Amino acid sequence: MKETMMRILSAVILLPIFIFSFQYSAFLYYIPLFLLGLTVIYLGLVEFYKLSDRGDEGRPFRTTGFILGFLIFTIYYFNLLLRQNQIEVPYWLANSGRFFKADYELVVLAIFLVPFFSFVWQILHRPLDGAIFSVSTTILGVIYLAIPLGHFLKLLSLPSGVYYIYIVCGLTMITDAGAYFGGRLFGRHPAGLKISPKKTIEGYVTGIITAIIYCLIINAIWTNALGKTPAFGTIETIVFGFIFSIISVAGDLSESAMKRDAHTKDSAGTIPGHGGVLDLADALLFTIPTAYVYLVFKEMAGFAI
Amino acid sequence: MKETMMRILSAVILLPIFIFSFQYSAFLYYIPLFLLGLTVIYLGLVEFYKLSDRGDEGRPFRTTGFILGFLIFTIYYFNLLLRQNQIEVPYWLANSGRFFKADYELVVLAIFLVPFFSFVWQILHRPLDGAIFSVSTTILGVIYLAIPLGHFLKLLSLPSGVYYIYIVCGLTMITDAGAYFGGRLFGRHPAGLKISPKKTIEGYVTGIITAIIYCLIINAIWTNALGKTPAFGTIETIVFGFIFSIISVAGDLSESAMKRDAHTKDSAGTIPGHGGVLDLADALLFTIPTAYVYLVFKEMAGFAI
Repeated sequence: MKETMMRILSAVILLPIFIFSFQYSAFLYYIPLFLLGLTVIYLGLVEFYKLSDRGDEGRPFRTTGFILGFLIFTIYYFNLLLRQNQIEVPYWLANSGRFFKADYELVVLAIFLVPFFSFVWQILHRPLDGAIFSVSTTILGVIYLAIPLGHFLKLLSLPSGVYYIYIVCGLTMITDAGAYFGGRLFGRHPAGLKISPKKTIEGYVTGIITAIIYCLIINAIWTNALGKTPAFGTIETIVFGFIFSIISVAGDLSESAMKRDAHTKDSAGTIPGHGGVLDLADALLFTIPTAYVYLVFKEMAGFAI
Repeated sequence: MKETMMRILSAVILLPIFIFSFQYSAFLYYIPLFLLGLTVIYLGLVEFYKLSDRGDEGRPFRTTGFILGFLIFTIYYFNLLLRQNQIEVPYWLANSGRFFKADYELVVLAIFLVPFFSFVWQILHRPLDGAIFSVSTTILGVIYLAIPLGHFLKLLSLPSGVYYIYIVCGLTMITDAGAYFGGRLFGRHPAGLKISPKKTIEGYVTGIITAIIYCLIINAIWTNALGKTPAFGTIETIVFGFIFSIISVAGDLSESAMKRDAHTKDSAGTIPGHGGVLDLADALLFTIPTAYVYLVFKEMAGFAI
């Protein structure tokens, strides 16, 4: 029971910080959100690069990953400041385009520079073995962390941004919590996954159902308490909740697969009851960018997003 | 001498195809260039994924890499069609934005989907070991090939596009050829590189000098034969030629590092005298996107590009 208590306690402390950072920090130019994002990228990369350290057989180029991961998130942050309509940005920022293009073109180039610099350091400073592993894990870490966190800011900058954050991040957390408590209460039949042998079918089903109910509650709050039309209709909400609850599980299992590969249990001990930042964020790293993919397709099909 | 002859012969056959595809295929909607790019991505990925195959200890998810690599290049191709000013594009294409955004936002999402799908296949179909290696080599292959080839199209779509292609691709090939023949003719002092122990200082110096001379000749042709002002001034051309000649060598050495890591000599035997597509394109994969980085910085500093 101690682990469960710690888990709840950590959530009670972290959740308000998270909600403040995206919902109420606009007047601070979203700087709390920016710093929170940088922290998650930093701690996540430290954990990911520890999982990917094979010593002489290959290990990531940490500094290259940190610098370019921060740079990519910073581009998304400036893009948020220019696109949001909560506050007026200073004149120099609104006209910064000539000096700093807050543009995805730069994100793609920054992504490319990760293997570029990694290869250069490999040639100059490393022995011959493990070149492919070292360079490829460096870039995977950056993509795995900086792109999802960047897309968190992109979701937020949409007209229905706050709604999407509550739906996507909320259902992801609820899936995890529902599966955890559902498994403890009703768990009988193992789900048969090699990666997580203790997970049960009952746990996953509870997770998915609670996630869908949560999304419908958010819709009800939007309609009744806030008097706004939710961006997702009811059927769309149920289908979205079902699919992204499964994607959320896939994110959780992917991180487990990496830990199994590295022969460790938790990615770190940063957050009591949860493990490391990756253990906490793993599912979000999958649901946030794929939710954005869904919205892009919806927009291309001619619907407002 | 046989290898040298084969090398020259291959170049004599391939070079006209290459020049036709970017300089004269606009009236065919650049389809020859598009097909050439897809071929290079396909063959390059086959070679890269062969170099990265460690059997039970991890191997890339080839199909995921192919599909998303082709998709990324296709986005750049449509972007070229919409931005070039050589030909008028059909009405449906010029107004395709609603259905198909030829946008780098999509490139970033497609990049993210590579590890996403790789992780899903890993969970469903692979044993536990090698998850990190398998997923990370899949994404490195896509970034290593599709982003540089996409930026070839981006260079071409600039107002001075053809000039940049001749400068960047030409100096890269000339550096390689100059180093090869310079090394054979004057090579005395080994450059002391663990990766390529047979390379000499004399070879590299010859490569850099011939590359700079080549760039100055291109400038002279632009000024005198074509009557246009080259986009690079003389000093800029010399500095650019010097730096990108070194980047070109770094690209060559990086591919050698991967081959050493995989304990093979040539990436394949596709091109007589050169080896595989990666052996031929390795330096271009580094110079093309970094040249674009240079142009972005130049534009941000307030200069026309």
